[in-house]
This record gives sequence, C-alpha cells and structure tokens, in this order.
Amino acid sequence: MKANFPRILAIEAATRTQSIALLHDDNVLEHRQQRVRFDHGSVLLQNIDAIVKAQRLSIHDIDLFAVGLGPGSFTGLRVALAVAKSLATATQKPLVGVSSLASLAYPQLVAHPGATVCAMIDARRNEVYAGFYRLQSTPDATGPILHAVEPERAAEPQSLAKLIEKHATPSQPVIIAGTAHLAYPDIDLWNQDFLTLLPAWSQQPDAVATAILARAQAAATLHNHTQTVAELSQIEPNYIRPSDAKLPAHAPWLKAIQ
Amino acid sequence: MKANFPRILAIEAATRTQSIALLHDDNVLEHRQQRVRFDHGSVLLQNIDAIVKAQRLSIHDIDLFAVGLGPGSFTGLRVALAVAKSLATATQKPLVGVSSLASLAYPQLVAHPGATVCAMIDARRNEVYAGFYRLQSTPDATGPILHAVEPERAAEPQSLAKLIEKHATPSQPVIIAGTAHLAYPDIDLWNQDFLTLLPAWSQQPDAVATAILARAQAAATLHNHTQTVAELSQIEPNYIRPSDAKLPAHAPWLKAIQ
Repeated sequence: MKANFPRILAIEAATRTQSIALLHDDNVLEHRQQRVRFDHGSVLLQNIDAIVKAQRLSIHDIDLFAVGLGPGSFTGLRVALAVAKSLATATQKPLVGVSSLASLAYPQLVAHPGATVCAMIDARRNEVYAGFYRLQSTPDATGPILHAVEPERAAEPQSLAKLIEKHATPSQPVIIAGTAHLAYPDIDLWNQDFLTLLPAWSQQPDAVATAILARAQAAATLHNHTQTVAELSQIEPNYIRPSDAKLPAHAPWLKAIQ
Repeated sequence: MKANFPRILAIEAATRTQSIALLHDDNVLEHRQQRVRFDHGSVLLQNIDAIVKAQRLSIHDIDLFAVGLGPGSFTGLRVALAVAKSLATATQKPLVGVSSLASLAYPQLVAHPGATVCAMIDARRNEVYAGFYRLQSTPDATGPILHAVEPERAAEPQSLAKLIEKHATPSQPVIIAGTAHLAYPDIDLWNQDFLTLLPAWSQQPDAVATAILARAQAAATLHNHTQTVAELSQIEPNYIRPSDAKLPAHAPWLKAIQ
C-alpha cells in the first residue's frame, strides 16, 4: 500500500509556525518547524528547496504532495496552496489536502489511542477554530483512521466547554492539541478536570502528521492518474469563517478575478 | 526562573537523525530534524547558521547552549560536542549536556505523566542503549522533573524484558521511545503486553526536549559565570560502551594526543 507514494512532501502553514516534512515511507528524512517572522511567502519555497537538496533529491523525486487546508491564517494557507499546486502541476504528481486541525490532533491520538482530542487554532477576534477527533479502527486492518466526531467550527473558547465535557470520560479527559489556549489565558475553561493541556513546545504544527494522513487519504481516494489543473483547483483552503478583509460591495469585478 | 536563559540552542546528534532546536522561553522558533546522509560534521554548523539567521539573530544572542551527550553515534557525539563547546567558548555563554536517552523519553513522559518510559538508541552489534525514566514531582513547584529509575546501559534487547516488565503496571505498559526496535524486528519482546511501541515517525530525536531539560538543569546547577575552557572540557559524551575502534596497544602517544 505504502509503495504507491513512498516520498511525500507536506506543508503546514495555517499558523505562524510553518512546518515542512519530507518522508520516505515512515522515515522522516527532513522536518522543519519555523516561526515565520513576516509572512510564509518569503521563506516557504526557499525552505522546500533547501530540504529537498539536503537529501540529494530533486522535486521530481517526490511521489505525493500534501498541504494543510486550514482553518487558520488566510495568507499562510493561500501561499501554501499556491506553492503546493504549482509543484504538483510542474512535476505531474498528485496533491492531497488535509485539515490542519486533524494534523494537529493526530500525534496526540497516536499517543492516546482511546482519547478524544480537541485541536484548536487561534482564529483571533476572541475565537478559536476547533475540531474533535477520535481514532476509529478499520475492518481492513490498515490501522486506525482519524474520525471527526464534531464538525470543525469557529467559536469563543468558553462556549466549547459543554462540547469538551461531553467527549470526556471519568478516566480520560479530552486532550487539547495546539497552542491556541495561550491566546486566551484568562478563561476558566482551561482549569477544568475534563480537559488536559500540554506544554506549548510539544504542540507545534507538525507536517509529519500531515504527510501520514495524506498518504492514507491518497491510498483511499486517488485514482491512478495525475490530477488535471481543474481538479487541482478544487483543492481549496477551508477558512470556516469568512476573511476579515471584505470585498467592497460595489466591485464585483474584483471578486471575479480572485 | 526562565528569564535566566530565554534563548536556547540545542543539538542532538546521537543517531543518524540530527536535530537542532532554537527556543525563546517555551516557544519553538526553529526546529529541524534531518536524516544525515554522510556525517553530522558536514552539515551541523551550516544548519545552525541557517536556523539562527532565519530568525534574524546572531549566535551571540543565544543565552544557553545544550547538547545531547549520547549514548549513540561516536562521530555524531564528537562533532556535536566540538561544535557546542566552540560556540559556547566563542560567545562566552554556558553549555549544558543532557542524556540523549532522557531527551528521547521526555516528550513521551509529558504526554503520559504516570508512565515509565524506556528510551532506546541502537548500539549496533545486537545491542541497544536503554534508559528508564519517570516524572517526579518536586516540592518547589517548578514542575515535574525527569528521574532515571535505572542506570543507562547497553544490552541485548531481549535481555531487557524482565526490567521492562518490572516497570509496567496492569493499567500502564512501559512506553518505548525511539526507533531502535526497528533494527531488531524479529524479537519476541516487542509483542509483549507490558510495553507500547509508537510509530517511527513520532519517535525521532527531538532537540526541543533537550533544550527544555537543559534549561531546568542550568537553572539548578549553573553559577552566575561563564564556564572556563577547563570546565567546558569536562562535558564529555557518555558512550556507555567503549568505541569499536580500539587504539593499538603499542601506540600510547596516540592516546595522549586524543
């Protein structure tokens, strides 16, 4: 199964920490997490080039591209999608999009296979993006698969209390993945027994997880041909909440060329 | 407490995967894991330079250097120690050495605060280096501290079965950190109920953990002065097992100049 897509390059740019991973089967050849100082655009392609070259590979050696679809930073997601689509087009290799919340949750689920994980990404304006996931065993024995137990959403953190409590059990609190809670330090919610917070340094966006999830998705859904540009164009960020930058109502032409 | 050493640069080179991390307090500014193709020496300093520059910092902005002491690759450890000591000397900033087995165990302990973690690094010649760790609460409320519950050792994997079983409880198997078990796939031990294996992609050497452990150690042990070259020279790799490359008995002068 894995032989279909041995070399995967994955990009996560939904937050200020850009993560890029290059895997060969289950081996991590390169993984880079970088707090972006200005914007993702100025360093993403440069970092990809450095990573591929450090392994004496060419971008044409990649078998599958993977990209985090958000929700999260509008600019980060736009840049990541643009780069990922361009590389897939130029190399005629497939591209798979993965929820950035699911990627954030996955390493915690692997460590705690019985738990529910709530991944959060700061959405600013007093909200977080949140997704709830569990591992689900599959009958075909390809290993457990991530299952979203609630729709991904944007919400005020405190308003998530009931939902988090619902998914906790007496012996297994809900594990919060990501660092969005640090943006809202004065909220009661984080002190509750029905959730577990982990140190920020262990909760950075992780494109290795994006790659692993993308490979499973590719094996299940990709047909044996390269995507057309039209098919690639259907892979779009999942913003959940509309952009803060609204288009002026009197400029429909601007919308048309976006 | 943290204010003493806000910016930490940590190096782990005990295995074929080189990991470098740059932290500011608990924030990961840069983290790079790279499967080294030839040897650590050819890329380590170059990678450190790239990481520091990407954050628009100079090496003189680092407050504390941290290095993994092994056990593991002789060449990797020698190169990492040489670079770390040189940078500490040139910038007059302190250097702290941390067990590479402890760094490997720490993220798993943070995820499973009640568990015993057995970290393993491949020692070749049918042996692994192994260390057993638990989190220990401290009365002074600086948070839990890693505690080695067995001396670090080199051993045939199968011979560790009794020790691993001893530290398991019915509800909490011992968690195996690292990927050394993949080098010995045909051993019964890995199928036992008293241990848990995790996917290789989640078990790479992690210099972020090295940095966090080094900061705690520095806060507890470092006096308020820069180490002298003589003090730095006492920070040495912990090979556990003597090098495969023996010195010829008739050449004592070779030993003297090492």
